[in-house]
Amino acid sequence: MKTRAAVAFEAGKPLEIVELDLEGPQEGEVLVEIMATGVCHTDAFTLSGDDPEGAFPAVLGHEGAGIVREVGKGVTSLEPGDHVIPLYTAECRQCEYCLNPKTNLCQKVRATQGKGVMPNGTSRFSYKGEKILHYMGTSTFSNFTVLPEISLAKVRKDAPFDKICYIGCGVTTGIGAVMFTAKVEPNSTAVVFGLGGIGLNVLQGLRLIGARQIVGVDINPAREALGKQFGMTHFVNPRDHDDLVGHLVELTGGGADYSFECIGNVDVMRDALECVHKGWGESVIIGVAPAGAEIQTRPFQLVTGRVWRGSAFGGARGRTDVPKIVDMYMDGRIDIDSLITHKMPLEDINKAFDLMHEGKSIRSVVEF
Amino acid sequence: MKTRAAVAFEAGKPLEIVELDLEGPQEGEVLVEIMATGVCHTDAFTLSGDDPEGAFPAVLGHEGAGIVREVGKGVTSLEPGDHVIPLYTAECRQCEYCLNPKTNLCQKVRATQGKGVMPNGTSRFSYKGEKILHYMGTSTFSNFTVLPEISLAKVRKDAPFDKICYIGCGVTTGIGAVMFTAKVEPNSTAVVFGLGGIGLNVLQGLRLIGARQIVGVDINPAREALGKQFGMTHFVNPRDHDDLVGHLVELTGGGADYSFECIGNVDVMRDALECVHKGWGESVIIGVAPAGAEIQTRPFQLVTGRVWRGSAFGGARGRTDVPKIVDMYMDGRIDIDSLITHKMPLEDINKAFDLMHEGKSIRSVVEF
Repeated sequence: MKTRAAVAFEAGKPLEIVELDLEGPQEGEVLVEIMATGVCHTDAFTLSGDDPEGAFPAVLGHEGAGIVREVGKGVTSLEPGDHVIPLYTAECRQCEYCLNPKTNLCQKVRATQGKGVMPNGTSRFSYKGEKILHYMGTSTFSNFTVLPEISLAKVRKDAPFDKICYIGCGVTTGIGAVMFTAKVEPNSTAVVFGLGGIGLNVLQGLRLIGARQIVGVDINPAREALGKQFGMTHFVNPRDHDDLVGHLVELTGGGADYSFECIGNVDVMRDALECVHKGWGESVIIGVAPAGAEIQTRPFQLVTGRVWRGSAFGGARGRTDVPKIVDMYMDGRIDIDSLITHKMPLEDINKAFDLMHEGKSIRSVVEF
Repeated sequence: MKTRAAVAFEAGKPLEIVELDLEGPQEGEVLVEIMATGVCHTDAFTLSGDDPEGAFPAVLGHEGAGIVREVGKGVTSLEPGDHVIPLYTAECRQCEYCLNPKTNLCQKVRATQGKGVMPNGTSRFSYKGEKILHYMGTSTFSNFTVLPEISLAKVRKDAPFDKICYIGCGVTTGIGAVMFTAKVEPNSTAVVFGLGGIGLNVLQGLRLIGARQIVGVDINPAREALGKQFGMTHFVNPRDHDDLVGHLVELTGGGADYSFECIGNVDVMRDALECVHKGWGESVIIGVAPAGAEIQTRPFQLVTGRVWRGSAFGGARGRTDVPKIVDMYMDGRIDIDSLITHKMPLEDINKAFDLMHEGKSIRSVVEF
């Protein structure tokens, strides 16, 4: 079949809207019609060429929502008409990782996904006879895409695609880091570094679980109002403080119980660790750092009781947890609408990247 | 009163055996006759002058056992004749730290202890009219010493002083890091870096909780036999492997569930983190690094599920947990005897430092 898609033919070039050839789903695979997709920093990171694992030409996009149109042989959990959110972190429920309650990093399709192909080692996309790679196992910048069954979360049919697509990455990454990775307790104090598409979701995750003090840190003063809307109780602009860590420790009465780094800056990751409380503070790295960058601190920080951990996809098990987060949204317990600042058709997808780079959008959503 | 003591008059000089003046216990304090004391790397670190918090002249020593001889006003939990182990990590059971189940770092006497004085801000030791400082709140290199009541664990009277003194630091630090800090589950795999006085206790802690694979890493081949005696199942000499981390990951089937750094070398701390399993591996720093040294790694190590933490005094709450570890020893569940390789009178205490620096001893114990 044919599908319209925004293709990254080369690193550093704008996406091109073209018509691709798409093969149907093979065994264990599912054809999905993508209805809406968010544009995330990770897409921009790969497109820039800085992602050492980035490969081209490819169909980017990993934050989508759509409808199952056809299922391959052996698919039992989905059928045509089901509404789904694609998962860049699959959940096979059978591998060593899925069976270990401490992790969400299912490895079943990890190796082939990293190479831009389906589990059988081939791509379903081609253009003028040349293969085009998949991306993060999802490729939601295509109107139609093929995914493994285990890479799809089935969600309720009354949820709007143009909002819940964001649950495919940013919302879950932020809220999940609070609920699934850090398991923040009610009445905790927390500091969130970077109030963008992830950090704002960390804020509302903290509000949801009943944190008592939620400090947001951002160099952009415009984020103060938005942060407060998402549960932030105190705003700190690093430019106002020579000793940011000292100020945060004082503000939180000796250090925060938890901190979250949502930027991908290794210096900020250090501040995030060092502003948590001696004895029990935990710092969670969410942001993706540039290739080769390293975090650094004195080991004394850990020996005196601080814990340093990271979170990928918010520690969420996609097929299990993503439908629950859709419910949270539909019940009005979390806000997604205010975060979707721009919407556009596929033809204008490059504008979404421009808005992001200019800091003008929180999230742009493309509707097909 | 008078007491014999080994005094550190200056950094970098041998201890001197002299007779000190000792004031009796004030309110909330206890006079203890030290019967035996171990000599630990931390004493040597401070004596060397490398410890930025080290202050002189002082009575070092923090790994002792003895008998209560007198109690000050208001002391209710101890009476003369009680057998005790001094605690450099107090347990007041009332401060913010003691009331938080995530930490053992009681802060009640921390500030004054760090300055080498009792909680009221003064020292009980003097020599020819000049004040001599306490050390780690314990000063077990003196035949008699004064401590806060909350810095003493009351233990059973049938336990031999020359063995249980080691529970005051090394034994608890090693076993506790497994049981209290990491909370290692049965059937786990673990790698222990550095098979000295702490590492060997980590090994037997892992055996005690039923770990299935216990890998010991040391550059000294002589530690292989001793390690096996303490539960080690595999020995790795870093000098035999160009890619130590790669070898450990392979040996443990994808990475260890837990690792422990018992040396204080920041490069080893990095290896210890990077050899644990993606998704769930946890690495615990026990060793004390040189002043200013920093740990470093790519944040990707944490984002993909590894956890970096530290342990002080094995995460043990001294008054609560130390008596239990004494019971473990008396029940024959842990071995201390084989670790005490040398015994000597106080007059020969400088030999204990020489033996340690030459790598000839695991633990030297001084008997008064």
